[in-house]
Amino acid sequence: MVITYELQAECDGARAGLLHTTHGTFKTPMFMPVGTQATVKTLTPEELYDMGAQVILSNTYHLFLRPGADLIKKAGGLHAFMHWRQPILTDSGGFQVFSLGQMRKITEEGVTFRSHLDGSSKFLSPEVSMDIQMDLNSDIAMAFDECIPYPSDYEYTKQSTARTTRWAKRCVEHHRSDTQGLFGIVQGGMYKDLRQQSCQELVDLPFDGYGIGGLSVGEEKALMYEVLDYTTPCLPRHKARYLMGVGTADCLLEGVARGVDMFDCVYPTRVARNGMAMTHQGRLTVRNAAYAEDFRPIEDGCSCYTCQHYTRSYIRHLFKAEELLAYRLVSIHNLHFLLHFMQDMRQSIINGTFREFRRDFWKQYQDV
Amino acid sequence: MVITYELQAECDGARAGLLHTTHGTFKTPMFMPVGTQATVKTLTPEELYDMGAQVILSNTYHLFLRPGADLIKKAGGLHAFMHWRQPILTDSGGFQVFSLGQMRKITEEGVTFRSHLDGSSKFLSPEVSMDIQMDLNSDIAMAFDECIPYPSDYEYTKQSTARTTRWAKRCVEHHRSDTQGLFGIVQGGMYKDLRQQSCQELVDLPFDGYGIGGLSVGEEKALMYEVLDYTTPCLPRHKARYLMGVGTADCLLEGVARGVDMFDCVYPTRVARNGMAMTHQGRLTVRNAAYAEDFRPIEDGCSCYTCQHYTRSYIRHLFKAEELLAYRLVSIHNLHFLLHFMQDMRQSIINGTFREFRRDFWKQYQDV
Repeated sequence: MVITYELQAECDGARAGLLHTTHGTFKTPMFMPVGTQATVKTLTPEELYDMGAQVILSNTYHLFLRPGADLIKKAGGLHAFMHWRQPILTDSGGFQVFSLGQMRKITEEGVTFRSHLDGSSKFLSPEVSMDIQMDLNSDIAMAFDECIPYPSDYEYTKQSTARTTRWAKRCVEHHRSDTQGLFGIVQGGMYKDLRQQSCQELVDLPFDGYGIGGLSVGEEKALMYEVLDYTTPCLPRHKARYLMGVGTADCLLEGVARGVDMFDCVYPTRVARNGMAMTHQGRLTVRNAAYAEDFRPIEDGCSCYTCQHYTRSYIRHLFKAEELLAYRLVSIHNLHFLLHFMQDMRQSIINGTFREFRRDFWKQYQDV
Repeated sequence: MVITYELQAECDGARAGLLHTTHGTFKTPMFMPVGTQATVKTLTPEELYDMGAQVILSNTYHLFLRPGADLIKKAGGLHAFMHWRQPILTDSGGFQVFSLGQMRKITEEGVTFRSHLDGSSKFLSPEVSMDIQMDLNSDIAMAFDECIPYPSDYEYTKQSTARTTRWAKRCVEHHRSDTQGLFGIVQGGMYKDLRQQSCQELVDLPFDGYGIGGLSVGEEKALMYEVLDYTTPCLPRHKARYLMGVGTADCLLEGVARGVDMFDCVYPTRVARNGMAMTHQGRLTVRNAAYAEDFRPIEDGCSCYTCQHYTRSYIRHLFKAEELLAYRLVSIHNLHFLLHFMQDMRQSIINGTFREFRRDFWKQYQDV
């Protein structure tokens, strides 16, 4: 296998481990910052590395449309193109394509869609997605799945989940790489039997790990946790589990409590650009007038570059003045917060104190 | 004196020296990156420092309107507010106010104008400008002068230059600081006798150095050089000379050749955000389609962070994708280019090879 998962410790359902990839090993549980267009918005690779990012995600759909997989292949692959030396996971393009709504058409062969950039007609399929991801040469490729909307009825979900399995087989058959691993993606909507069936069918295929897709799509958090409760036990203990598109502290904690190892989301960087900082107490909208003369850092005790050097007052000024440094400083804080939150959580699993970690988190966190 | 200029070497009209200020000494000739709104756009102070920036400029007009000098004073002054430990020069607000055209009214007392932010009525005068700059606590304050448009007729220029002298006296009388020096600003338009008269009147006042204002306002470069030719000889040898608002390599070189020590301009960072890189050969518009598959750095041999790690192809992709990292990477290159260009120029003055430096520059530079 190109990728191996090494389980190090378990504690109250949570797992600590190591994922070994071509571009190095990373520690789990882990949050992956998202670099949609071959850049984590506003930040350099060195900044990401320094704040503890070990693996980042980039989007096949976006890179396929611009600048194109052939150009990135010529550049020596995505790592060289974007100057990131650590592991990269690429998604399959499925989620973005299905998000296009009326602008795409699904057949058994694949999905025809219109580019959001110029309206031109494009086609993605299990084979095309594998080809693109092999050109990008990420460390972890994701299988091309169908992402259904929420809510979806049982019958459609059942048919779609079966198609995702057929597509998964085509991905496995088409994928050839000595440097890139391949993860399957569990679907099945919010239906227990379909989730379990999806797991069963995918576990029979030689995937290096498993994404859990179709969650964080508008459902209540309690429902997402319920789906995880009956999904992760169906996945193999010695492969990594990746909950896709989840990026708030509470969901990461509750995902880890249910045996998830990896997460990604644009949330920390997207809300940062809107002036919203993430803290152990919950959100802090630093661009609010209340902070105009507040000379404290975003979060007391935070060791991030932003909190070490800048006040809420200054950051608010930068937002009011629409200065680009504002987006950068809060992106640094939010990613640092989430990455260090995961480090602390991982340590508690290794120490056998995850239960206390979880309890203490909920004592101070305000979900808004 | 709070500020002293130490002349180290002279070579063919060019000077190398040291300017000692409250927040440290900087080497001249020197280009000052501009941090209009208490931030050099897209960059952190650490990045500026690492690329060789020793002193930056910030704008009194902008900070007066937002966030206000009182807030910055409460924050502990501009250095603490923006986390820049090295010297800062603040302009007087004069240039920006006079650029407002119909939105301002000049009297002997000062200038009433409308804020570009909310249209509210504001007032700047020599005394108000000194008060603001003392609140900001920059290392070098600039006198409040009248900036006239180009071209202006002899009679108006004469009256205006006389007013600038009267205002300069009021600045000197009002300015009180143990940590901040004060520079006068020479005016006089494109008229030799008025420039010389302005110098004479200002040199009689106890300024710590002299700005040369009213240039780079639309005139031909040859005319600017001609004005410098007869202006700098009228300024004292043991005080610094600062050519305001000039920031292209050719003008910096020709300014230094005429005895100028300091420069500032938004040019390197502004054109960077438009995808234009500065090189020893002239401009390179890195966002052009010609560079889509060009895997070379912006400039071969450049030691900047950007050229060490990124290709023209990648940077062009970032511009096409409107990614903020694009603005950052080219800003880093352009400022690094200009700061190192000044360092090399300074070394040639000390080595006695400035004439050769100037000749070699013109052999390869294409002014477009």
